[in-house]
Amino acid sequence: MNDVDDLGAFLDGAWSHLEHGVAQATSLARYPTFATVSPDGVPQARTVALRRADRDRGRLEVQTDIETEKVTALRHNPTAALHVWLPEADLQIRLTARVTILTGAAVDDAWARVPATSRVSYGTEPLPGTPIAQVYAYEKPANRSRFAVLDCQLTHIDLVHLDTRHRRAAFSVTDGWRGKWLAP
Amino acid sequence: MNDVDDLGAFLDGAWSHLEHGVAQATSLARYPTFATVSPDGVPQARTVALRRADRDRGRLEVQTDIETEKVTALRHNPTAALHVWLPEADLQIRLTARVTILTGAAVDDAWARVPATSRVSYGTEPLPGTPIAQVYAYEKPANRSRFAVLDCQLTHIDLVHLDTRHRRAAFSVTDGWRGKWLAP
Repeated sequence: MNDVDDLGAFLDGAWSHLEHGVAQATSLARYPTFATVSPDGVPQARTVALRRADRDRGRLEVQTDIETEKVTALRHNPTAALHVWLPEADLQIRLTARVTILTGAAVDDAWARVPATSRVSYGTEPLPGTPIAQVYAYEKPANRSRFAVLDCQLTHIDLVHLDTRHRRAAFSVTDGWRGKWLAP
Repeated sequence: MNDVDDLGAFLDGAWSHLEHGVAQATSLARYPTFATVSPDGVPQARTVALRRADRDRGRLEVQTDIETEKVTALRHNPTAALHVWLPEADLQIRLTARVTILTGAAVDDAWARVPATSRVSYGTEPLPGTPIAQVYAYEKPANRSRFAVLDCQLTHIDLVHLDTRHRRAAFSVTDGWRGKWLAP
């Protein structure tokens, strides 16, 4: 713990967890809570799966059906909060991102990498969130035109480590991710 | 699984997880992600601890330092989203709540139940989120006047069970929590 006061090491650790989450389907860091604001101002939160984590570009990637309420929310307010709580590490990772919704030819490569068995996540009929008469009164055809990538350009990272003494730091793209300690 | 199409059983299960979370400090359901909207419209998310779950009153309780940004957000927009993802149960619990910030005499009983060792969570100096020169350049005195209870009156519950076939249902206080199935 001789780097307890090393901001860079703190940030390195968080990115390691995110990268591990992309690589390991069973990692808790794979499944951030993705929070948005609905057009009428209501906070919304749901689980997403991290598909990519590119530290050099400060970018995360999430994939979604274009017909979900998070896309509706992002079209109205393109800012998202991503939240990961890792009990074993006693670490909270809070991310703020500006989100671009990519579709069409821009997601050809990403679609090509989606396993056939997972493509049914994009195309539910009736549309997600539609009331249905019975529990299974829906179909899940794979629908390429419903596939979208959420390109999450990080603007802010807030880390809290619940060690014997709490450590909290904030990092911002505007200061080159150098970071500063905060009172927890 | 003969109650797979039983909305009431689905909701019962979710409440069981929340109640278990209150009782068991190691349960993942103890630590929802609590999402709010900042005064400038940015979604925010952080971990909180569930202190009470009262199904009869459709109410959850969270405790906080009054000087945190979530209180600032709630004073501006008193709606919160609470989110729990339970990987072992393959269950996502999404809650929407109207939040009342309780302080003063209204929280005397709650404060009396906070263990002495936990009271230091209410009173950090300088205020939470203040930049500090070194990692541990803060104090954590217990400060009764900073203790607040977030009374979360639930308005909406959305459940997704990632079973062999996905099950999703929405429940609302306005329909007496009867609920309806939704396309997932």
